[in-house]
Amino acid sequence: MRVAVLGTGVVGRTIGSKLMQLGHEVTMGSRSADNESAGGWASEAGEKAEHGTFEDAAAAGELVFNCTAGTASLEALAAAGADNLSGKLLIDVSNPLDFSGGFPPSLSVMGDDSLAEQIQRAHPDGRVVKTLHTMNCAVMVDPGRLSGDHDVFVCGDDDGAKAQVSELLQSFGWPAGSVVDLGELSAARGTEAYVLLWVRLYGAFSTGDLNIKVVR
Amino acid sequence: MRVAVLGTGVVGRTIGSKLMQLGHEVTMGSRSADNESAGGWASEAGEKAEHGTFEDAAAAGELVFNCTAGTASLEALAAAGADNLSGKLLIDVSNPLDFSGGFPPSLSVMGDDSLAEQIQRAHPDGRVVKTLHTMNCAVMVDPGRLSGDHDVFVCGDDDGAKAQVSELLQSFGWPAGSVVDLGELSAARGTEAYVLLWVRLYGAFSTGDLNIKVVR
Repeated sequence: MRVAVLGTGVVGRTIGSKLMQLGHEVTMGSRSADNESAGGWASEAGEKAEHGTFEDAAAAGELVFNCTAGTASLEALAAAGADNLSGKLLIDVSNPLDFSGGFPPSLSVMGDDSLAEQIQRAHPDGRVVKTLHTMNCAVMVDPGRLSGDHDVFVCGDDDGAKAQVSELLQSFGWPAGSVVDLGELSAARGTEAYVLLWVRLYGAFSTGDLNIKVVR
Repeated sequence: MRVAVLGTGVVGRTIGSKLMQLGHEVTMGSRSADNESAGGWASEAGEKAEHGTFEDAAAAGELVFNCTAGTASLEALAAAGADNLSGKLLIDVSNPLDFSGGFPPSLSVMGDDSLAEQIQRAHPDGRVVKTLHTMNCAVMVDPGRLSGDHDVFVCGDDDGAKAQVSELLQSFGWPAGSVVDLGELSAARGTEAYVLLWVRLYGAFSTGDLNIKVVR
């Protein structure tokens, strides 16, 4: 499948490379067509790796990963173009982290709204699913690197889109039983807020190689 | 030890009863000395169970549990009296849940502040430790009711106070290795925000009998 990965940071490059390893064709999108990080990634990732603008990538992709910084996501998706997102699965991996006060960050949207919902409102014809953003990217694409079971959350308003994401997550190495469907997209208010706990866990354990498991 | 439990809701009554079972003497505090819930609890909880106003309870207690609703906590602690809290361990179990928009709730403070820090600022001579508020009260006092290990978070600016809380949590049944010290009190920004995820987990699993474990 041709996948658009928006964002050339470590999250985008890691997910892009995982998708390439799984046999997908990836177009990485960034603000400018000559982005060095995207170019370097594409030259290493294989023959079927492409890169271009957000618009180029979104036009090429059958599904779209938003791996841009949360504070830049709405702008990046606007640049990608509503028509290029219409009807497509839009997997939102971003976090609305606000580092203006230093580390640990706050969130630029929280409480009775979420970045995922803002994205969905801006692109009502896209099928937004929020997932994977509650861990670092090494864990996203290699859940087995941690010792023991742990969970990945999924939420969105389109059940078919969530089912497609669940399959993709399983191809990443997530056991079906570790994919926790939290329901509608507004559940992203919870998963995005959780990231404020994640940064404290990162501080307490001096590693981002961690995640949580729901125990009942 | 004589313990003050502020708040007569299910959290306060459950923690109060657990403390009584462990041999402590509990004074439950509420807005008025003739609170029916506190009176009913005290008559069932045993001879050494007392109840009175927030001020009565805080004056009697060597340590103080804040089990009031988060939106009422600052007022309740003000009524308890700064002098009655000075130098004492103040265990904050409250959540700043805002139900004005219905269920699921939002938070009345979040992001770059927390209710725990607001309480500490209002009572600089108290030794505030935030803990236990990331689960329902049945799990707080009986962690073994869930299948498998899971964690309780502790944060605060006074290491001695946190050590005392860790011992108390172990007396509640928490293994020492499940007590996760997140550092300074500002980490409550993370644990309080997590509660927005907890309410979604509650919805997804149709039970509050759950908690999380940090997996590395």
